[in-house]
Amino acid sequence: MNPVLSHKCFGGLLTVHDHDSAVTNCTMRFAVYSPPQAETEAVPVLWYLSGLTCTWQNVNEKAGIQRYAAEHGIMVVFPDTSPRGDDVADDAAYDLGQGAGFYLTATEEPWARHFRMDRYVVDELPGLIADMFPKADMDRQGITGHSMGGHGALTLHLKHPERYRSVSAFAPIVAPTQVPWGEKAFSTYLGPDRTVWNDYDATKLVARRRTDAHILIDQGGSDQFLAEQLRPELFAEACRHAGQKLTLNMREGYDHSYYFVGTFLAEHFAHHGVTLKG
Amino acid sequence: MNPVLSHKCFGGLLTVHDHDSAVTNCTMRFAVYSPPQAETEAVPVLWYLSGLTCTWQNVNEKAGIQRYAAEHGIMVVFPDTSPRGDDVADDAAYDLGQGAGFYLTATEEPWARHFRMDRYVVDELPGLIADMFPKADMDRQGITGHSMGGHGALTLHLKHPERYRSVSAFAPIVAPTQVPWGEKAFSTYLGPDRTVWNDYDATKLVARRRTDAHILIDQGGSDQFLAEQLRPELFAEACRHAGQKLTLNMREGYDHSYYFVGTFLAEHFAHHGVTLKG
Repeated sequence: MNPVLSHKCFGGLLTVHDHDSAVTNCTMRFAVYSPPQAETEAVPVLWYLSGLTCTWQNVNEKAGIQRYAAEHGIMVVFPDTSPRGDDVADDAAYDLGQGAGFYLTATEEPWARHFRMDRYVVDELPGLIADMFPKADMDRQGITGHSMGGHGALTLHLKHPERYRSVSAFAPIVAPTQVPWGEKAFSTYLGPDRTVWNDYDATKLVARRRTDAHILIDQGGSDQFLAEQLRPELFAEACRHAGQKLTLNMREGYDHSYYFVGTFLAEHFAHHGVTLKG
Repeated sequence: MNPVLSHKCFGGLLTVHDHDSAVTNCTMRFAVYSPPQAETEAVPVLWYLSGLTCTWQNVNEKAGIQRYAAEHGIMVVFPDTSPRGDDVADDAAYDLGQGAGFYLTATEEPWARHFRMDRYVVDELPGLIADMFPKADMDRQGITGHSMGGHGALTLHLKHPERYRSVSAFAPIVAPTQVPWGEKAFSTYLGPDRTVWNDYDATKLVARRRTDAHILIDQGGSDQFLAEQLRPELFAEACRHAGQKLTLNMREGYDHSYYFVGTFLAEHFAHHGVTLKG
């Protein structure tokens, strides 16, 4: 499978690939940054899940993420944020449909056929990565993400702690069942039964699925979505109750942009490195 | 003058400003990254000149440049690449008109009224920076740039070595009088007399204006513009003849993108830091 695009960067190689997904029933695009260490040795794999409207491209172009991957010798996989294409259901709003997959398995129409991003990330893409990148050590995986992707990282870790041994998030949607973004997406993709929603809500999940991981979250204090959509205090409180280790850094003056993500990536790679490279 | 935009980033502040320029006779937009050190002490100033089609935005969003500025305590100024606006002459081509100012003073019509980017960068914007940013130490300035901006950095340093004490460039257009991009722009903006062009050509300038600076250039070996438009060997040869100190790093496998620029920014900031922070 030849890459669609390829850029040398910080001594490693960023490659972009298309493939036909049996899970989302459409062509999916993803990117992989292979650090220079992967030329000669097995390296851990970090999953980076992006936020609303994004693709593999945003964090690769806007956050300098390859530098940290190269420093730590960690391969990074960047899935898309939803299925895409003319045959795939969509919505004019930026927070629904293509670009807004929310890392769940939709049960409602017209979404159910394609919108299965949790299964795509957990069940299908890892096999492809293992096949295509023989130096990817699939026994050492971590997961992180931004905003909607932070929601993805936290929920996938809590459901698959043996798979994603390290976890962190940037300005994650920690309690989608209690905020407008999540209520809109979950009611559309999952229907009106809110008990089903709880399975995709990190704040609900941690109460019954505490893991041994130390969760790292960074959150900008001047993030325009903080009070209405993100509400990290709900997750912090749930972690406290559950005995889940959490470091929640509130970063004064920082917003929701990739300027914020880029600023704290170094600390997140260090965090994942402790577990994955121990 | 309130910023149009502001992002906290790596502990410092990126701000974007509009002002009415008396040199280019239009509203100009520029950005400044103030490192955290500038809250309490005077800091050196590095000018970053961007390439064709770019604005302040590209290198700020795509290269993680603020990290290095914060590490070294250097303020960075990002001028636009041309005058802009409905009243400003333009061309449908990406390499002429708005976004393609080439850091020169146009003498031909319809360009002469607005296209004066060298005078704007050298004569007008520094006064504004000094007024707006009292911690900017205008006695310690350096200059760098990418592609067309590398041409700007080299030529402005060679003409004003007392002003720009340190200089570097990423994939610069070193010999515009001998390559298609430069021939097109110079004949359009400056007219047919090629002797006039020489004043804006680093390879020509260095022969008669050798400076004491050590020039640093990085160039991707897989840059799609290398053989036709960039031709760094012409400048290297001229420097050798003139006795100008030059380090020209050919970087195997790297292209012309911000992935390339971002990879080597750390070394360029270290280079400027040696001179500007001594």
